[in-house]
Amino acid sequence: MRAVIRRDKRLVCDEIAELTPGEGQVLVKTLACGICGSDLHSLHHMEHMIDLSRRAGGLDNGFNPSADTVFGHEFCAEILDHGPGATKALKAGARVVSVPVTLHGGGMEMLGFSNRLPGGFAERMLLTEAMLLEVPNGLPTDAAAMTEPFAVGAHAVAKARLEPKSVSLVVGCGPVGLAVIAALKALGHGPATAADFSPRRRAAAERLGADIVIDPAKESPHDRWEGLGVPKSRAAQSMMRMMGNAITQPVVFECVGSPGVVQALIEAAPAGSHIVVAGVCMETDRIEPSIAITKEIELTFVFGYTPEEFALTLRQLSEGIIDVSHLVTGKVGLDGVADAFVALGDPEAHVKVLVTPNG
Amino acid sequence: MRAVIRRDKRLVCDEIAELTPGEGQVLVKTLACGICGSDLHSLHHMEHMIDLSRRAGGLDNGFNPSADTVFGHEFCAEILDHGPGATKALKAGARVVSVPVTLHGGGMEMLGFSNRLPGGFAERMLLTEAMLLEVPNGLPTDAAAMTEPFAVGAHAVAKARLEPKSVSLVVGCGPVGLAVIAALKALGHGPATAADFSPRRRAAAERLGADIVIDPAKESPHDRWEGLGVPKSRAAQSMMRMMGNAITQPVVFECVGSPGVVQALIEAAPAGSHIVVAGVCMETDRIEPSIAITKEIELTFVFGYTPEEFALTLRQLSEGIIDVSHLVTGKVGLDGVADAFVALGDPEAHVKVLVTPNG
Repeated sequence: MRAVIRRDKRLVCDEIAELTPGEGQVLVKTLACGICGSDLHSLHHMEHMIDLSRRAGGLDNGFNPSADTVFGHEFCAEILDHGPGATKALKAGARVVSVPVTLHGGGMEMLGFSNRLPGGFAERMLLTEAMLLEVPNGLPTDAAAMTEPFAVGAHAVAKARLEPKSVSLVVGCGPVGLAVIAALKALGHGPATAADFSPRRRAAAERLGADIVIDPAKESPHDRWEGLGVPKSRAAQSMMRMMGNAITQPVVFECVGSPGVVQALIEAAPAGSHIVVAGVCMETDRIEPSIAITKEIELTFVFGYTPEEFALTLRQLSEGIIDVSHLVTGKVGLDGVADAFVALGDPEAHVKVLVTPNG
Repeated sequence: MRAVIRRDKRLVCDEIAELTPGEGQVLVKTLACGICGSDLHSLHHMEHMIDLSRRAGGLDNGFNPSADTVFGHEFCAEILDHGPGATKALKAGARVVSVPVTLHGGGMEMLGFSNRLPGGFAERMLLTEAMLLEVPNGLPTDAAAMTEPFAVGAHAVAKARLEPKSVSLVVGCGPVGLAVIAALKALGHGPATAADFSPRRRAAAERLGADIVIDPAKESPHDRWEGLGVPKSRAAQSMMRMMGNAITQPVVFECVGSPGVVQALIEAAPAGSHIVVAGVCMETDRIEPSIAITKEIELTFVFGYTPEEFALTLRQLSEGIIDVSHLVTGKVGLDGVADAFVALGDPEAHVKVLVTPNG
């Protein structure tokens, strides 16, 4: 079968071996699979990523970043066949999504970051039957493929310890920031302010329900805190509390992932802010701890999602609580993946590009 | 009256103007005042500290770090006289402590970091009557002077969001780390592990009730997590939860304040750890966000204490819940302050040195 393979830090379309579902596995046809920012980064920097992941005590299943890898972990697929011991609760033809992990050979393969199994940039994949979620009737395949990236937002919001009247700011409206905005609004939180330099991304944030959308080239989003009832200095906050007024902790979602952003937020956000770091900065970063200390900043670094958050996100998509129809700005076959990786370098070009390996 | 003055980045004993208590103020005789790590740092780096504080949006009351300053914010004092409008709820002769802030000239003066009022390295001070707490009968003056530094521990522990079975590690057993250990044990938390290279500091940690005391030159304190029921990897933690076992969030108190320590803890602590940063690192620091993200680390930067935490600490000291009698390892008059600043550079030389300006 055909797949897009990362080989020598390039993407090539080539044939790979056919798959046979093992015990508890299903063979699926990949209907659509999103290109993630981590795919873009991995193309050139996989070795560094894997080194960092090992230092973080991540799962070490012998993955070799220099060997062939088929990316793709944001997928919607259709069941083709069941392996031995399957319950067949979902029949062939059912559309499914899954967290991108397959139990295989006695271990766990992270689909999209595996040498043993292909991810979603292949015509077919092997998934674990017990992890499948059926796409509720009527939810388009493209929207179902957004379950994975939007679950990231559900997780970040769950980690933010929001109170009913929390005021939040989402910095960066790429796919991670958009997922956070969607999760905030799905849970009824607000007001949520979103900031991004890109007009296209700001428009997407607005359609997802951001209450205030700011172009940081024209205005600092931090100028809005006072107007939303959050004094910026610790002294002013103390004064407000002494007057008997409650202040909820300001929450900032860092969804950019570039060096310097966390420190810029430590300096610009109100004292006492909770900065949820969801943007993945792969470089060494610098902070000034004394400023974070004086302002009593909290930094919560978040990653991934739980199976429950994944299932919640699928439900929110299927019930129309989160509408992602406007976010798919491009679709390519396997032949178009390499060019799409280049195009995604420009934030104005696309929000989300889906790969349809079977045309 | 006599005082130790910071002048041209040196400490000199000199005469300063006598004080007259204003509206709502009391004149006090300084009985004892501890030397704090921030005093040591300020002697040479006050300008940098004030710059950082301003960037943090701290109180800007026109303090000039190049002008004369009398340090000292960890004090116990005796009331000598009351200013106009005083309630005189506490009479002359009463021993008192106070948060080191005096309302003065329509603003707030931070005692020890003020050009207008002297801190505790002076024979007398002006305090605000409404902020005074009487030293409960019988608590020795030396112990009462420890209220301020130990309130820092109460605050750090309050910010740690500990659960009843939380497992915690205190890294660094200088005055901040010791205050954290004391606060943990005063609230009945445990097991608490403490780590420091200094035998003297380890002995102090043990006397304050640390359950496990480790010399990091011989053993990594992080090797103990598994034995305390906290798996280090996220995968192992998930497995434990799937087996129905609860895991409380591991809590690490960073009480060193040197560059590199936060990143070392991000790498060495268990996944999901809450690192409470109480050590004040005044330099730019480096972190690797991707490792913090993969491990879902939380960093809470903490500073100071609330008036309630200050009062709680005084009560704990007076009731013998926290015993600090063994921590005062030196006492000096005003003439001895400059030498004591030098001696405190060696962690083996002292735990806490008190200044007794009136002999």
